[in-house]
Order: sequence, then structure tokens, then C-alpha cells
Amino acid sequence: MKKAVILLSGGLDSATVAAIAASQDYSLYALSFEYGQKHNIELEAAKKIAELYKAVEHVVIPLNPIVFRSSSLSSLSGTLVPKDRNVESEENIPTTYVPARNILFLSYALSFAETVGSRDIFIGVNALDYSGYPDCRPEFIDAFQRMADIGTKTGVENDRILIHAPLIKMSKSEIIRKGISLGLDYSLTHSCYDPAEDGGACGRCDSCLLRIKGFKEAGVKDPTRYAN
Amino acid sequence: MKKAVILLSGGLDSATVAAIAASQDYSLYALSFEYGQKHNIELEAAKKIAELYKAVEHVVIPLNPIVFRSSSLSSLSGTLVPKDRNVESEENIPTTYVPARNILFLSYALSFAETVGSRDIFIGVNALDYSGYPDCRPEFIDAFQRMADIGTKTGVENDRILIHAPLIKMSKSEIIRKGISLGLDYSLTHSCYDPAEDGGACGRCDSCLLRIKGFKEAGVKDPTRYAN
Repeated sequence: MKKAVILLSGGLDSATVAAIAASQDYSLYALSFEYGQKHNIELEAAKKIAELYKAVEHVVIPLNPIVFRSSSLSSLSGTLVPKDRNVESEENIPTTYVPARNILFLSYALSFAETVGSRDIFIGVNALDYSGYPDCRPEFIDAFQRMADIGTKTGVENDRILIHAPLIKMSKSEIIRKGISLGLDYSLTHSCYDPAEDGGACGRCDSCLLRIKGFKEAGVKDPTRYAN
Repeated sequence: MKKAVILLSGGLDSATVAAIAASQDYSLYALSFEYGQKHNIELEAAKKIAELYKAVEHVVIPLNPIVFRSSSLSSLSGTLVPKDRNVESEENIPTTYVPARNILFLSYALSFAETVGSRDIFIGVNALDYSGYPDCRPEFIDAFQRMADIGTKTGVENDRILIHAPLIKMSKSEIIRKGISLGLDYSLTHSCYDPAEDGGACGRCDSCLLRIKGFKEAGVKDPTRYAN
């Protein structure tokens, strides 16, 4: 069986990517990250998705939040997660930006892929219904691929590790329809950046707003329990 | 004062880079990594160098060695560190290769630099007296720079973080002469991949062999205590 390293956050996008890779007969090696998020419910969701798709390994990597303390997603940040933004018209990169996040995640994925003998990495980045993060765009994935080809043993030996970003040009509703067509139960996933203490989603952060819009446009009921 | 993020292993090269950055009036933000090395003495050396150059912060990042267990430098590996290799004529990448190591290190450095407001990262890679690792070569640094320019907030806002690799084309003896000209005490540094229990250097791994050759060619006494 082909091996795929999957970056699994527990959110809607990465769960769909796991469903896609599993449907292509990859055996999954899942990587998740604990970086002092305000929402550790995400990691519980990642665990469920990894179990659902029978991941061979699911490694949770602790990242030192000191390095990302400038992000409002970090528990060390004094900044609040912004609410009620107009994600589609907003041009500024929001404070939820985590410096070099996908660069770090893909670097770990490269290392893990070389170690377990995988030549395929899957990441759920999306540059359509997104918050404008620079490390979610196709030009970033291309530049990372080129750097990986030059900076790794497999790359220089012409046995490259390929980075798959199957959602990158899909809308959120297309992603949801794709997942449903593959039998994915989205009640297992978690999107909210700033959940209430009882785990209810806030319904007002970028991530909730994009999710709500996606389910609405897909004409599918969102199984999320919203606090408000 | 300008801020520099320095990747500090505690070895000869990164200590020299710290000396260079300090001599250019940067205040230092040091990053070191604990990745289940067989030689944690390295981290003690990194701490001393960070203190010597009055680093504003010195963050030690734990990396999960599961991800790199294929490397003979990992404590999880069953492979021995190779000895008595002819580093200059050997063409294969040795088992001491840690998958995506410098990619990961530079990714953390990027994140830390954006967080603390630094626009300069220093790394002690060297492509002359080295073990043939792909992530030590100028073409890798160039590709990483380009990826960073595209994948970070500072990069897309034309306020890029520059990666400095001042040793990349220097021989080991030139590096040592440079450090000595800056007053660096190399007895603080540690190079051996596989030290004895009492901390003595093996004198036979790639890293020891390159160090011994460098001091010899520089005409300087190597302050290292060798076990054999």
C-alpha cells in the first residue's frame, strides 16, 4: 500500500483531505500539532478522524508556543480572536495568522515522510474561502515543493516527495460536497478558533463564518453545535 | 539594536556565526533543538555560547524524535554513527542525515523572527568541509529564501526576513580563523556526534574528523578533549 503523510488539524478541510487520500488507497500517517491553541478540542477531533481512516500512526507534535506568541490563536497571546470579519472583502492578514505555520507543518511532514518511506504528503490548504494567509496559496505550495526537492535526500536522489493540496482551488461548499460524497461525517470535525468552555462553536470567528457559509451554499445541514 | 535569530547547535560552526552576528551589533535571539540526539552535551555548549553573546532569549525547542527515527543521530535509531569515513571522497549521504533537519530549523527560525520582529536569521551551514547533506548547500538556502518570501506575512508585505549563511563557502580552517579573530573560545563548543559517557569526543565521526582537520589546517591547537 502507498503511504501518505497527512497534516490533520481536526478541521473540516484536513478531514476531507484524509477522506480523499483514504479513497485513493493510501495508508495514512497522520501528523497533528499542539501549539498552545485556545481550542484543544481540535486535537480530539484529529484523533477521531485518524481512527476513522485507520491511520497506521498518528503523531501529535508539541510546538513551543513561545515561538508563535504573536498570534491571537496562541494561548500566550493577549490578543482576542477577531469576530464578525467580512472574510471575503477583508484585505489584511488577520491576527490569527501563526508565523510560518504551514512552513513548519510541511517541514515536519517532509521529515516524517522520508522517515517512513512515504512519497506523498497531503495538506488541506485552500486559497478560495480562506483568511488570506500567505501559506495557503498555490504559489507557496509550489515554492515549498521546489525547496523540498533541493533540500532533502529523496529530492536530490530524484525520488521526490510530492505535496498534494487537493482543496486549494475549491470553495468551502465544494469541499463539503466532496467529503459527503466520500461518506465523511462532518460532526467529527471542529472548526471554531474560539470555542466556549463547553466546546460550543462561537459562530463568529473567520473559521466558523467560512464553515457556516460553506454548509449553507452546499445545501447541507451543518452538524456543528454553536454556542450562540 | 537590530535583532538576529541564530540557530545555535553548540558546535563550532554555529558558535562562529553567533560571534559574527554579535560583531555586527545584532542582539541575539538563539534557537536550539533537542531531538533525542545521542549527544546532549551539544545543548550545554549552546547554552554557554548564548550566555557568552548575551542572547536576549535562548529558546530550546523539543522535537519529537519519532519523526526522525531513521537517522543514526537519533536516540531511537538502532544504527551506529559511522566512523573513519573519508568525508572528502565519499559521495553517499551518510546515515547521520536527519530528514529535513535544516528545513525544520529554518522554519522555526522564520516563525521566531516574525514573532520578535527580527528581519535577519543566521545559520552556520557549510558546503565545503561537510558531510554532503543536501540542506547545507547554497542552492537550498536560495530555495528556502524564495519559499519564505512567498509563505510569510513579512515576505508578502515586502519586509522580508533575510537568511544569512556566512560560512557557506568557507573551509573549516577559515571558519576557525574567523572565530579566533573575533575572540571566540572554541573550548566552549562541542562537535562530536557520538561522545563517550564522560563527554570525551570520539575523534572518528565525520564531525570530529572535520574539526580535527580544520584546526590542523588553521595551525591552531584544538581545545577538544578526545576520548581516544
